[in-house]
Amino acid sequence: MRNCIIAQSGGPTVAINASLAGVLKENENTHYFDNIYGSLNGITGVINDRLINLSEKVKESPSFLEKLKVTPAMYLGSCRYKLPDPNEDRAVYESIAKYFEKKEIDTFFYIGGNDSMDTVYKLSLFFKETGSPVKAIGIPKTIDNDLTCTDHTPGFGSAAKYIATTVREICHDTSIYPVKSVTIVEIMGRDAGWLTAAAALSRTDYYSLPQHIYLPEVAFSMNAFIEDVKKAMEKSNSVVVAISEGIRDEKGNYISAGESSEDTFGHSQLSGAGKALEYAVKDALGVKVRSIEINLPQRCASHLASLTDLDESMMLGAKAVGLSAEGLTGVMATVNRVSDDPYKAETSYADINDIANRVKNVPREWINAEGNDVTEDIVAYLRPLIQGEPKIDFVDGVPEYLPVVLSE
Amino acid sequence: MRNCIIAQSGGPTVAINASLAGVLKENENTHYFDNIYGSLNGITGVINDRLINLSEKVKESPSFLEKLKVTPAMYLGSCRYKLPDPNEDRAVYESIAKYFEKKEIDTFFYIGGNDSMDTVYKLSLFFKETGSPVKAIGIPKTIDNDLTCTDHTPGFGSAAKYIATTVREICHDTSIYPVKSVTIVEIMGRDAGWLTAAAALSRTDYYSLPQHIYLPEVAFSMNAFIEDVKKAMEKSNSVVVAISEGIRDEKGNYISAGESSEDTFGHSQLSGAGKALEYAVKDALGVKVRSIEINLPQRCASHLASLTDLDESMMLGAKAVGLSAEGLTGVMATVNRVSDDPYKAETSYADINDIANRVKNVPREWINAEGNDVTEDIVAYLRPLIQGEPKIDFVDGVPEYLPVVLSE
Repeated sequence: MRNCIIAQSGGPTVAINASLAGVLKENENTHYFDNIYGSLNGITGVINDRLINLSEKVKESPSFLEKLKVTPAMYLGSCRYKLPDPNEDRAVYESIAKYFEKKEIDTFFYIGGNDSMDTVYKLSLFFKETGSPVKAIGIPKTIDNDLTCTDHTPGFGSAAKYIATTVREICHDTSIYPVKSVTIVEIMGRDAGWLTAAAALSRTDYYSLPQHIYLPEVAFSMNAFIEDVKKAMEKSNSVVVAISEGIRDEKGNYISAGESSEDTFGHSQLSGAGKALEYAVKDALGVKVRSIEINLPQRCASHLASLTDLDESMMLGAKAVGLSAEGLTGVMATVNRVSDDPYKAETSYADINDIANRVKNVPREWINAEGNDVTEDIVAYLRPLIQGEPKIDFVDGVPEYLPVVLSE
Repeated sequence: MRNCIIAQSGGPTVAINASLAGVLKENENTHYFDNIYGSLNGITGVINDRLINLSEKVKESPSFLEKLKVTPAMYLGSCRYKLPDPNEDRAVYESIAKYFEKKEIDTFFYIGGNDSMDTVYKLSLFFKETGSPVKAIGIPKTIDNDLTCTDHTPGFGSAAKYIATTVREICHDTSIYPVKSVTIVEIMGRDAGWLTAAAALSRTDYYSLPQHIYLPEVAFSMNAFIEDVKKAMEKSNSVVVAISEGIRDEKGNYISAGESSEDTFGHSQLSGAGKALEYAVKDALGVKVRSIEINLPQRCASHLASLTDLDESMMLGAKAVGLSAEGLTGVMATVNRVSDDPYKAETSYADINDIANRVKNVPREWINAEGNDVTEDIVAYLRPLIQGEPKIDFVDGVPEYLPVVLSE
């Protein structure tokens, strides 16, 4: 009997269920695994013995995989649990190993971002050290696009498409009055500005909005920002700027109107960069100003998913099954870009040690010299990732998805 | 020569351009008007002599009307200009009348909400009093759905579909962690709760989220709200509530974490009902809590428009042309509902005096006794209005729209 466990972790994306569907579909073709179990709420489902048999789900319903592919958030639920340092606490590792043995587990697949890859790294190391044949393989996902060793990450293209579309629609909305107005759009991305850069995709040959884009990769100066807005207002009634939630001043302090606290992984909880700039513009320029926090919809709006993103996410799920069959462990499935135009990409893999806990930032040369916009190079990089619209079933006027399995 | 002027006013909606397209298309069939002029920035385009010839636009490009139908915001731009009391200041009326005579204007069409209907009312009265043959006819639009004499308003169905979809996607997103969390979704609607009620359409047979919905029609009690949340948390990890931006306490004070000021029409500018409840929940219950302000996208997200809404908006534009041909003035085109299931509606008209400056609220019997949810009756009323998805052209991954004509 050769079984595997798959789990999802970290924040939701529109594509993380597509990767799950990719694993399941590949196994329908190869039959490499006898049973694919889903662990509920990430690795904690293994620790607390909460598994469901996904292979049976696939057999039960022929439409299950198609529906899963376009369902937002995480079908198996998530967790923010971080494995302890194995040098300090081996008990949980031993308990996991025992559980895997009992369930005849050949491979543990973890779909997630860099925190989840830390779990894959630690598990693969433990299995190697103890001579266990169990493999641990990572499948990337994060709307932040900040994982190393892969051209981009599943979930990012859909979030970027949502940003491009929503910012374009907002730019139409703010262009109707013959009065000066400033609109500040705050976009997710704590450390990396990839998603904020996608606001450039909303530009058309008739609107060069947003006029400015500010990423966390460049120190933010409030004075320079106010000057940028002032100059833009001379040319256009409607000024729109896109900012990352993670913009920081030259001392490294977050631009924020609110408090800061820390989450389980030691990240600062941000809120209010947009509000802070709204107040600053109001004080300095006295014009009509509004800030819009795009908030959760940018990571869960499946109705506006990128088909390229969903298809590649499935490919990465399939690739992970192949990596296991090749006997690899401690690796993550990756995307390599072959060409921009026409866009061509293929799957590969990388050592998890080069990925876990690292961050890939927007290169400085993809941001303009003034630090208030992105260059054409990043637009050429981003454009292929938002192409294509998946077919979404609307029932009674609203998209129909699968529920997170916990609620069943 | 028989010409007309059409203008758009008030806040943007997804359907206001569809009504404009409806007028233009009907005239392609009937040739009632020789020229249809568009007045830029509402009635101020008449005052400042800023007209464009829309009939020529239609002739120039065969795809113009199809594109216009799905373009968000307002093709002709907007204004917030209010005509003075004709008893105090007749100069502007006389200047408008002179301008209309010069341009051989037979009818002035105004697409807008109740403030715009005030303009239609005043103009029609002035023309009648002065024996002018010029007609003034209103075409409704407002995402607020608060106009009297019509079953519903263009733009509302699309905004409701956006709310239903977005809240459903948010409910998926918030259901993935096995920890208690509260999510507060703040929805537009200053005085009327119609749009907030549409959050009920996001419910499925697997998620009865949002658990509670609070409309401005019922006085809001912070204590009762905290009790509602506490009870909901006992049954479900993820608690989601939908609130109107305009909720008020029993003394009539807005629930707000921010300041208040007034716009040109004497409305209070609201912000922060969601934030105020977020802080209240954090203080009282100490759980993970987040507030999401849906903000501008609910009124400009054409990519998620309701086809029923767009089709009916075109029908109302066509009806307005017919009302003019019948010689009517001082009226607004309306929708009458014939039946809920199967849904059937027809166009009609009403006296503008019964509409201008009035507000239609959600009836008390469509809100539950506790004032923390809506009833099945309003769901049956809302459901038909969000049906159908228009074909949107995506170019390079982003919807393609027409620019607001001002930018040309």
